[in-house]
Amino acid sequence: MNIDMIRAAAGRLDGHARRTPMLTSPFLDEIAGRRVLVKPECLQHTGSFKYRGGRNAVAALDDATRARGVLAFSSGNHAQGVALAAREHGVPAVIIMPADAPALKIANTRALGAEVVLYDRAGGESREAVGDKLESERGLTLIRPYDEPQVIAGQGTTGLEIAAQAAELGVTEADVLVCCGGGGLTSGIALALEAEAPGLRVRPIEPEGFDDVIRSQTAGSIQTNTAVAGNVCDAILTPAPGNHTWPIIQRLCGPGIAVTEGEALAAVFHAAERLKVTAEPGGAVALAAALFHASDIDGDAVVVTISGGNIDAAMLARALATEGHPQ
Amino acid sequence: MNIDMIRAAAGRLDGHARRTPMLTSPFLDEIAGRRVLVKPECLQHTGSFKYRGGRNAVAALDDATRARGVLAFSSGNHAQGVALAAREHGVPAVIIMPADAPALKIANTRALGAEVVLYDRAGGESREAVGDKLESERGLTLIRPYDEPQVIAGQGTTGLEIAAQAAELGVTEADVLVCCGGGGLTSGIALALEAEAPGLRVRPIEPEGFDDVIRSQTAGSIQTNTAVAGNVCDAILTPAPGNHTWPIIQRLCGPGIAVTEGEALAAVFHAAERLKVTAEPGGAVALAAALFHASDIDGDAVVVTISGGNIDAAMLARALATEGHPQ
Repeated sequence: MNIDMIRAAAGRLDGHARRTPMLTSPFLDEIAGRRVLVKPECLQHTGSFKYRGGRNAVAALDDATRARGVLAFSSGNHAQGVALAAREHGVPAVIIMPADAPALKIANTRALGAEVVLYDRAGGESREAVGDKLESERGLTLIRPYDEPQVIAGQGTTGLEIAAQAAELGVTEADVLVCCGGGGLTSGIALALEAEAPGLRVRPIEPEGFDDVIRSQTAGSIQTNTAVAGNVCDAILTPAPGNHTWPIIQRLCGPGIAVTEGEALAAVFHAAERLKVTAEPGGAVALAAALFHASDIDGDAVVVTISGGNIDAAMLARALATEGHPQ
Repeated sequence: MNIDMIRAAAGRLDGHARRTPMLTSPFLDEIAGRRVLVKPECLQHTGSFKYRGGRNAVAALDDATRARGVLAFSSGNHAQGVALAAREHGVPAVIIMPADAPALKIANTRALGAEVVLYDRAGGESREAVGDKLESERGLTLIRPYDEPQVIAGQGTTGLEIAAQAAELGVTEADVLVCCGGGGLTSGIALALEAEAPGLRVRPIEPEGFDDVIRSQTAGSIQTNTAVAGNVCDAILTPAPGNHTWPIIQRLCGPGIAVTEGEALAAVFHAAERLKVTAEPGGAVALAAALFHASDIDGDAVVVTISGGNIDAAMLARALATEGHPQ
């Protein structure tokens, strides 16, 4: 896992992934007490950065392997990223989801051309068993959501763009706050910045109570969450940093910051109001840290990722009702 | 008023105006029955395309004139565009607004460094009289919101970007739906496309009941609206096309389309849900036409502008409640 893989990913994604802009707002600068540069990956295809990693992983397969199709376990953003990447390559995608996943997510994934296989989570059916069977019977290749080098490389292309766009705006020394679940985006950006913008330092941002990465940083070894549900930041609730992502995070990242659900929802308000983008709560935790944990951050500027925008209308309405004040 | 002025504007705006991306969504393509390419100027500085024209007009003044400051009549997007452009040049901006304008708009314009002068609309005070006095006493230069060549030239830079971005996506023949108030954006884009992408044809999109441009197209001469208030699309309610914008629209644009308030609000939902951008109702009329008036449009693809995103949270919540269905 190294910068050359990220550069190769950028070549594979050229003309496919969107180069998202870098957004700013004087109103956010005022709240944060410093310049805030925002990289809105909610504007990426499928509404999250996950398309980058999915597309790169599918593109990097050899032709014969890819032609048999790909497989992912996901009820969320990774599913959509892999589904679109597979459709663009004209190969099958099978997405394994719990039968009780929201109907809208199932429909969206199917609309992107994927075959959705449901498993009975409540009844104790193992998704891994379902997946193993599909892998062996149909020769599908599993695309892991974060602990997979080509996925990390794809997410890392976000970091190449951040380095260039921050430099254009005169920012070469700053913390880069990254919404962190399993650490694919965090580690990918960290590797890209190490090579391209060594004055920019990644800091992982997590929801309070689901701060496995922060506790891993403190302990010096991988720590786990006891739960991976029960928080509005569903997109970034994962059991633990991965075996590939953790060593990169440990070596390159500054201390993490945990934010509350109320702060994440208030940040969704500010994203809509001031940046004119739709963020999902898990995709807004880094913005929440910039706005509401300013004293934990150093420097005249801070770079923030918005990692995704796949929020349903009811949750967005709930965020708007905060009027930007954490509750 | 010609393409050279737009190219000169592009030079002045380089490094200042944001090159907004071109967004797409397979879900919108499905509703519209064709490819939909969306140019989201809500992501522009100050949340609307108006910054382009404001910045170009301020930049084009000679130094001595500009140093005395600029003046605008506006309670909305033009005010913010001119205010930011003036602040960036370090010169005063005076914005004349009705005393009963929403407090938030007054506060936002002040936050961008402008001096806000209120006039008593209800009491019959003339804003022109207030403006004339300021012009003569302080030597301020009036920046008109649309009927001003350097403003049209600035807005036209949107068209240069559309031409390049549509070509990158393989679209060289299509209707380009433009949200139309006084016609600054419409005429500017039309001039840019005439020179750079002659297969792309602008069509003005207006709110039903405020369709002065469409009626002007039918009559062959400038027609006026009887009211300029009382519709959720407040950003694009204007009395009539301008003396500079109308001849360009008449010469270059295809037939206009009028949309209902319910269609505009439903389009705001789809912009948030599928494109992950915040649109205001007036900024969403072109998307509404693409989605809900598909049979009035020809071709395999359509280009849509979202002209602004300055919507308050209550109106956005109202749009979300439509769930994308015009009411």
